[in-house]
Amino acid sequence: MPNFIVTPWEVSGEIDYDKIIQEFGIEPIDDKLISRIKEITSEIHPFLTRKIFFAHRDLNWILDEYQKGNPFYLYTGRGPSGDIHLGHIMPWIFTKWLQDKFNVELWFQLTDDEKFLFNQSLSLEDAYKYSYDNALDIIALGFDPKNTFIFSDIDLAGTLYRNALKIAKKITFSTIKATFGLNNSANIGQIFYTSIQTVPAIIKSLIEGRNVPCIIPHAVDQDPHFRLSRDVLPKLGYYKPASIQCMFLPSLQQGGKMSASMKHTAIFTKDTPDIVKKKVNNAFTGGQASAKIQRELGGNPSICSVYKYHFMFFTLDNDEIKIIHSRCTGGDLLCGECKNNLIQKINKFLLKHQEQREKAKDIIENYLLKEKVDLKSIIKEKMEKSN
Amino acid sequence: MPNFIVTPWEVSGEIDYDKIIQEFGIEPIDDKLISRIKEITSEIHPFLTRKIFFAHRDLNWILDEYQKGNPFYLYTGRGPSGDIHLGHIMPWIFTKWLQDKFNVELWFQLTDDEKFLFNQSLSLEDAYKYSYDNALDIIALGFDPKNTFIFSDIDLAGTLYRNALKIAKKITFSTIKATFGLNNSANIGQIFYTSIQTVPAIIKSLIEGRNVPCIIPHAVDQDPHFRLSRDVLPKLGYYKPASIQCMFLPSLQQGGKMSASMKHTAIFTKDTPDIVKKKVNNAFTGGQASAKIQRELGGNPSICSVYKYHFMFFTLDNDEIKIIHSRCTGGDLLCGECKNNLIQKINKFLLKHQEQREKAKDIIENYLLKEKVDLKSIIKEKMEKSN
Repeated sequence: MPNFIVTPWEVSGEIDYDKIIQEFGIEPIDDKLISRIKEITSEIHPFLTRKIFFAHRDLNWILDEYQKGNPFYLYTGRGPSGDIHLGHIMPWIFTKWLQDKFNVELWFQLTDDEKFLFNQSLSLEDAYKYSYDNALDIIALGFDPKNTFIFSDIDLAGTLYRNALKIAKKITFSTIKATFGLNNSANIGQIFYTSIQTVPAIIKSLIEGRNVPCIIPHAVDQDPHFRLSRDVLPKLGYYKPASIQCMFLPSLQQGGKMSASMKHTAIFTKDTPDIVKKKVNNAFTGGQASAKIQRELGGNPSICSVYKYHFMFFTLDNDEIKIIHSRCTGGDLLCGECKNNLIQKINKFLLKHQEQREKAKDIIENYLLKEKVDLKSIIKEKMEKSN
Repeated sequence: MPNFIVTPWEVSGEIDYDKIIQEFGIEPIDDKLISRIKEITSEIHPFLTRKIFFAHRDLNWILDEYQKGNPFYLYTGRGPSGDIHLGHIMPWIFTKWLQDKFNVELWFQLTDDEKFLFNQSLSLEDAYKYSYDNALDIIALGFDPKNTFIFSDIDLAGTLYRNALKIAKKITFSTIKATFGLNNSANIGQIFYTSIQTVPAIIKSLIEGRNVPCIIPHAVDQDPHFRLSRDVLPKLGYYKPASIQCMFLPSLQQGGKMSASMKHTAIFTKDTPDIVKKKVNNAFTGGQASAKIQRELGGNPSICSVYKYHFMFFTLDNDEIKIIHSRCTGGDLLCGECKNNLIQKINKFLLKHQEQREKAKDIIENYLLKEKVDLKSIIKEKMEKSN
């Protein structure tokens, strides 16, 4: 048994991504594929060269179709159960890069229904509120409003349920048990839910009345949903959705991913500079017991959460990260300086993000899709006819 | 084991309604309750005195609230998987009587999603078409358009899914197994579906923002759904829905209910006079081997499908049904005459029904509730904002 768990509803332990590639049956992103992307995009994102986006399904097919003049659209999502932290933001930054480089549409699903169904203490009303709150963080990243469609499942419930029916008819409970590990004590909304998460993978095909390729950038824990989508959708005459999958930004403590439920181990987009400073200063590092020993022996970046934050998010310049690495291992860079460097970078990022997040409140309507379902007005209209 | 099956998806065998009362835990409708209804309605419907509507849940509570000035609404439904036959019509006639006598609203659900999920060979598009086709038969019965709200689940999918979520969160797969006998090979839409069928039992409470009593007239096979509704809704702060439950109009052959899948044993509302004549003439009766023996020994109405059609639908006058019974058992009424009498009554009913059904095409919009969800126009509106 591996000493980690990665499901759409639980991620814990020391994750072995090579093992995940084997178990999930996903393809690693190799240098050849990175070169192929670079031919199209000219530049290449460090999240690819650093193998943070490390695996995919059918990415070559997506590029084939693109080069044949049949462009894809992007679909990604967020489970709105609380505030946004940097671990959420990371794949969205890459998604924006894809949108910009390929000039394609992004469909962004806020799965308030899922979060309500899987979180015993979360009300539907609160999940729905988080959808709108979290949308501000998405918009703050600068997605092109003309190419970006953000929707909460509750707001698009009619479209989703109607189209989920055909998907649901093709999935048995046995399959759900095998894919997600749900058992007989699962609630029936949880059991049905995956069919809702599959609909956005065909939404452009539904709208256009022809098959449109779809690629889903997502953290690797969501792969089981899309494995099912890929199994079912061809039976309904649609393309399999492709995917490009990333690792988790780790916790500031030892082991595990950054988690909203462990507030002191995660940096939230609403955190003040002081809070960021405190959290990073308390972070688990690869430093030695004293400055003296560290100067002699050097630090260990391979286990250091502060180094991982530099590497995975805040120090994307290759020369700069090499210097951090060699100064650390050489004993020249002590943890205090390295942390201060990270704190400044995080706070610079958050300052801008928080400004953009405020501005997002004024432009959120430019992004949102919402079915206008007001039962009272439907009834009123019907009553006028029948009188 | 009983030699009959009654579930929402299968009804077969010789149904023992006393056993159903025991097994389902429903209350028989006794003479005291009938008298109580008559005090309010002045007249009493033969479907009650003849115990065709034979059982209920919480009907006394519904009448208590009504008499306290807190009126109920009616909720019933139809699974649109084909043409309407007389067995479907029977409970709707009684539902109309309740609407007229109590002057209350009726919410009529067309469960096209259910029929699609449970019928392997039915497409969603065809189930949806049957919703509109079947609505014509409902409207033909003369329901008051000002008090009647007919909707297909597909047309009201957003409202239903959003509100089904809270219900679904309270129901486990274990409960579904125990209540409906579904197993691991059930599709996940089937497993989820009952939560959709519960929403209309609270729809008036949702609209009015206060608890409104609801009573569901239905054939007894639907009781498992509403047993679950009654279990879950109080946990969400709603009333338990009450119910008033009827028997099935039998098949024209020996045993079983009138079934749309056995076309020669059921009278459809679209049948021509000639077809009706042929079907009734081929019906299973309680007659003797020859006219001579029948004149000597009399017939047996207790096993006769023709007599049951008189008793349950077409000869509701008490004096007249007594004469049929005594002339039959006395050997004076032969099957030919009795069948001709029934044929004339059925054809008279259908002639009027078919006329009203044609007229219903012009007024269907006075009854229908429909969410106006046109994704393309939602997108267009959003695009105008983002440009």
